[in-house]
Amino acid sequence: SRSINLAVIPGDGIGQEVVTQGLKVLNAVLPQDVKLETKEFDFGAKRYRATGETLTDADVQALKQHDAILLGAIGDPSVPSGVLERGFLLKLRFLFDHHVNLRPSKLLPGVATPLKGQPEIDFVVVREGTEGPYTGNGGSIRTGTPHEVATEVSVNTAFGVERVVRDAFARAQARPRKKLTLVHKNNVLTYAGHLWTNIFNKVAAEFPDVTTDYLHVDAATIFLVTQPERFDVIVTDNLFGDIITDLAAAVSGGIGVAASGNINPSGEFPSMFEPVHGSAPDIAGQGKADPTAAILSVALLLRHLGYEAEAVRIEDAVSADLAERGDTPRTTSEIGDALAVRVAG
Amino acid sequence: SRSINLAVIPGDGIGQEVVTQGLKVLNAVLPQDVKLETKEFDFGAKRYRATGETLTDADVQALKQHDAILLGAIGDPSVPSGVLERGFLLKLRFLFDHHVNLRPSKLLPGVATPLKGQPEIDFVVVREGTEGPYTGNGGSIRTGTPHEVATEVSVNTAFGVERVVRDAFARAQARPRKKLTLVHKNNVLTYAGHLWTNIFNKVAAEFPDVTTDYLHVDAATIFLVTQPERFDVIVTDNLFGDIITDLAAAVSGGIGVAASGNINPSGEFPSMFEPVHGSAPDIAGQGKADPTAAILSVALLLRHLGYEAEAVRIEDAVSADLAERGDTPRTTSEIGDALAVRVAG
Ligand SMILES: CC(C)[C@H](C(=O)O)[C@@H](O)C(=O)O
Ligand SMILES: CC(C)[C@H](C(=O)O)[C@@H](O)C(=O)O
Repeated sequence: SRSINLAVIPGDGIGQEVVTQGLKVLNAVLPQDVKLETKEFDFGAKRYRATGETLTDADVQALKQHDAILLGAIGDPSVPSGVLERGFLLKLRFLFDHHVNLRPSKLLPGVATPLKGQPEIDFVVVREGTEGPYTGNGGSIRTGTPHEVATEVSVNTAFGVERVVRDAFARAQARPRKKLTLVHKNNVLTYAGHLWTNIFNKVAAEFPDVTTDYLHVDAATIFLVTQPERFDVIVTDNLFGDIITDLAAAVSGGIGVAASGNINPSGEFPSMFEPVHGSAPDIAGQGKADPTAAILSVALLLRHLGYEAEAVRIEDAVSADLAERGDTPRTTSEIGDALAVRVAG
Repeated sequence: SRSINLAVIPGDGIGQEVVTQGLKVLNAVLPQDVKLETKEFDFGAKRYRATGETLTDADVQALKQHDAILLGAIGDPSVPSGVLERGFLLKLRFLFDHHVNLRPSKLLPGVATPLKGQPEIDFVVVREGTEGPYTGNGGSIRTGTPHEVATEVSVNTAFGVERVVRDAFARAQARPRKKLTLVHKNNVLTYAGHLWTNIFNKVAAEFPDVTTDYLHVDAATIFLVTQPERFDVIVTDNLFGDIITDLAAAVSGGIGVAASGNINPSGEFPSMFEPVHGSAPDIAGQGKADPTAAILSVALLLRHLGYEAEAVRIEDAVSADLAERGDTPRTTSEIGDALAVRVAG
């Protein structure tokens, strides 16, 4: 019989609330014969304040025993900026080699966008997740003095770029429009830019049915608000991907519905699924958070584990729910309940 | 008697067309007693193809003799990406220490925006222009092999950050709303992020009447499309500034109206003014380019040289022209003519 052994990290702020709803829907959608085992982990600001720990070696070993990880959100104003991001979230992405950071953007019927005229938005960003300026490779000298010099090094390898570019081409090929856009800044970041562009062009030859395009990241932000329909699959580096996926979320329904997967395609380490939004401490504990992004992240998780039909059931339920969402605000658990009913029905 | 000794670089594509209109309006707005001398330089793709030169030492010496530089646009598909950008545009910004890259965004009445509900947009981005990942400090090893490693180094100095942050605070203080937002990614780029954040907080103490805010660059892109009215002055690094100012241009009327100044505040070297748009080879030579951005760049140029009243005359003329712009497309020179008449009138 089948089973899913899931690590659950509620995290901080609204993380707990949205993860609860994610699990509710997961339980509702899974067939009877699939045994779901979950283990909760207490990473985040509270544990850091109590113990100074963000993620120990023992934690990493424990997480490795799971098929996948569901993460709520990490971050709290009580912890200095960067401590949990680098010490927990990025540490996991790097240790578990989550090199495909998958972020779909789809403007569903009935969903509000800040853009005029309800454009057609349906694309996926494949963001590299283990290189670029995210490596922590930097430093500072004469720190705190008027002579301080601080550096950040973007590290890009042929190995790292090729595997994510290849993944993106395969995803583009599997979609009806079969179009892949490379987003970089190869006119300024010429070393990294040449590497990305050359590998992109090389791999393109193996996917002759995929239409390719290139945009500088600055121009890409323009098209994301003026012609979002031009995008199908985008592949880009870690930092550019971070920036454009927040913008993509904003134009396609907001971060309340933006899901993401930190994927290790080989399955060597568990992949991690999380809403794009943060811990939103300002609204935490009030039942105001929209759990849709966490629930859609559960769909990505199911797809990754091979439960395609169940993933689609969740996505269809979300589409139907959003289309019928009235103006009366619902609580976090009301939305979770509604979606659990839909996926079960 | 007063005089302006102007270096004019039409550049590539639509550069020539829009610069011609910029000069037309400049001539029309200047008082009789100001003697305008212009010298045209042929930098860009054509010269590069003919001679292999982008900007020689002699060119730099010649440019230095001027009070300011008006640039159209540089870039052509016939030249490999990066050659003219690094060899001309960025070279000049660095050599002439253009550390304040000024990019105002104002949504004028009657101007179309991709955003719903015609939001109030009136902010200025002060983008650092001489540091960050733009320094060209990077390299690659095992280039072209499966073992290539390519790096890009973001270099940030206390000297460089403090002067641009101070400039931004002064600009914020001079505006009615007196609000300055630092945009960075200090939770990931922690070395550069700490430097920027610490200096920002230190300088803030000297400007107690300026309200301060901080946003990660990814979140900033969200607010630029959902709440652009929250911005007054933004200060940010070279790369983040590049990205968010294209987005800012897109939401506030498009790159047809986005002006910029590459400013050396001390006046040690000439400052350079240019539209944010590129050379747009696809529409070059057809009289289709909107010269408004180049003309607004002339306004920034005049303000920089102390001709405040003339700068305002151009800006008012552009506002009036845009408010009355009908649906009938006008040619590049028709728009220039209309603005020249307005500023003279
Ligand atoms: C919290 C932060 C480290 C993270 C990132 O920059 O990757 C977040 O913005 C994201 O997009 O997942
Ligand atoms: C052409 C390019 C080098 C330049 C930049 O990145 O600064 C442009 O995008 C700009 O914003 O002026």
